[in-house]
Amino acid sequence: MRRACITGGGGFIGSNLADRLLADGVEVVVVDDFRTGRRAFLADALERPSFRLVEGDVQQSAILEDAFTGCDWVFHLQANADVRHGLEHPQLDLEQNTIATSKVLEAMRHCGVANILFSSTGSVYGEPEVFPTPENAPFPVQTSLYGASKLACEGLIEAYAVGYEITGLICRFVSILGERYTHGHVIDFYRALRSDPSRITVLGDGHQEKSYLYVQDCVTAMLSAARHHEGRGGAHLYNLGTEETVVVDDSLALITTQMGCSPNVEHTGGARGWTGDSPLIRLDTTKIRSLGWAPELSIKEAIVRTVDWLDDHEDIWSTSEEGQR
Amino acid sequence: MRRACITGGGGFIGSNLADRLLADGVEVVVVDDFRTGRRAFLADALERPSFRLVEGDVQQSAILEDAFTGCDWVFHLQANADVRHGLEHPQLDLEQNTIATSKVLEAMRHCGVANILFSSTGSVYGEPEVFPTPENAPFPVQTSLYGASKLACEGLIEAYAVGYEITGLICRFVSILGERYTHGHVIDFYRALRSDPSRITVLGDGHQEKSYLYVQDCVTAMLSAARHHEGRGGAHLYNLGTEETVVVDDSLALITTQMGCSPNVEHTGGARGWTGDSPLIRLDTTKIRSLGWAPELSIKEAIVRTVDWLDDHEDIWSTSEEGQR
Repeated sequence: MRRACITGGGGFIGSNLADRLLADGVEVVVVDDFRTGRRAFLADALERPSFRLVEGDVQQSAILEDAFTGCDWVFHLQANADVRHGLEHPQLDLEQNTIATSKVLEAMRHCGVANILFSSTGSVYGEPEVFPTPENAPFPVQTSLYGASKLACEGLIEAYAVGYEITGLICRFVSILGERYTHGHVIDFYRALRSDPSRITVLGDGHQEKSYLYVQDCVTAMLSAARHHEGRGGAHLYNLGTEETVVVDDSLALITTQMGCSPNVEHTGGARGWTGDSPLIRLDTTKIRSLGWAPELSIKEAIVRTVDWLDDHEDIWSTSEEGQR
Repeated sequence: MRRACITGGGGFIGSNLADRLLADGVEVVVVDDFRTGRRAFLADALERPSFRLVEGDVQQSAILEDAFTGCDWVFHLQANADVRHGLEHPQLDLEQNTIATSKVLEAMRHCGVANILFSSTGSVYGEPEVFPTPENAPFPVQTSLYGASKLACEGLIEAYAVGYEITGLICRFVSILGERYTHGHVIDFYRALRSDPSRITVLGDGHQEKSYLYVQDCVTAMLSAARHHEGRGGAHLYNLGTEETVVVDDSLALITTQMGCSPNVEHTGGARGWTGDSPLIRLDTTKIRSLGWAPELSIKEAIVRTVDWLDDHEDIWSTSEEGQR
């Protein structure tokens, strides 16, 4: 790995990956249009001579080809990551995930980039029947447009890997927590409690069981897979997560304890927080662990660390949620 | 089922379905731009008062909304069906399959159509590990852009079925044979042997084992599934095929016998005819059979009937292959 391009490199996971690669001596090119990414996350990177920022939209092939020139890796992390509101604007996942990924793959062919790592999601398993869910679980039924679009991206990457002899790595993430976290249930709870610490509404019955992974553990896992498969061809899938789960109500309790408040909790009811929400996510991580990787932080430690970081970054959570899309 | 729209209804399977529905007393609207479909296939349908043709491209939402108005079913059969040449024009499957299907689903929402049946493919199983391959086989890796695009369509339909409460039926077809067949290995062999009966080239080692289904059996199976699930919601998957297979060399022998020629056979070699070709396709059809369906013709009978039909339709096979795309 000499020079890696990170699409969405101004975002939560992408900027953490950029910092790690730079520290490891890899040249880094970031493509981001800062619609949801933040320039401030690249403050350290921007001071390094081995870093380059290409500001623009991954929908534009010319932007991608500029960024990919001379790279041996693409980490394609840019995406519409809003799983919950897909049904309100059903084109967004298609455009920003499926079509954008097709453009990334075409630009890679054009520039001769031989390796790609893609951030997929445990949501592609829909509502699985097997727990913990392995990469070769029974062929799932999609329950969200977000999951469907990520599955479409996976298929494209696999077909390109087979057809054009590139190396395609697909990492199916659980939700990620940690420094630079800007989107998801922890910030939703945090923001609501900062606004009114006396009460909080939980979508669903609060018993949904979810899995989370600390962002630095996620970056380490991605790089373990990347270094293992680099230049060896084929399509390879890895679940990235802890094998722990946490119940939404318990996650909320940790957050309120950390914030020093004790709100009245109201549940909207039902096993799912919204249409397409998964009542239980727990991924089998045997395969990524077989490469020697293990997470350093538990889910509870990751939640506490995320709340601590939000305490120090009012600029992140005080932005309106709409401004994040 | 009162009024059904068939996208790609001027094609091989679509026009056979149109004739059957009309005979069953269902009003039929066909959308076709006749790029690969043929007006002659709709000659009988066009004489019926309960038939309407909307000539145009399924990429155009206004065309779809015109066609879907007043329909309770959409049979979405229009597709780029060229599995073999996907790598030469990698955007085609994305545009004509994935994006077109998204437009079909949006137009259904706009027009309030509650049921869709989609023609998917056994190619979504890639190179499966389980034979015969059931609908819930292990999560596959895509080996062709065609399969990847059909999988993307499946995911979209499933997410729409869950999210917008429509009924989504996905039928994974093996290759279909019979009257109005215009595309695939039988016509490729037939055309080559008409041109030069003394020699023929087989892609791969000729040992690839494939499954085929007679078009009238395919239509009966689609309608069995449609009538069973109509208005009942959810996403449902059905393999459509025979549980027989035929080896490519044996299929060729049947064709040459039927045509009365005995060519020298040359093999290009290798287990796969082309990148993304599947050395073995055999689908588990227990689920569709559980609805009372069974095929009437064997694979060999379907091949013979297809050759007989081609004998009577020189206009079909004498058109250049390029003209079919």
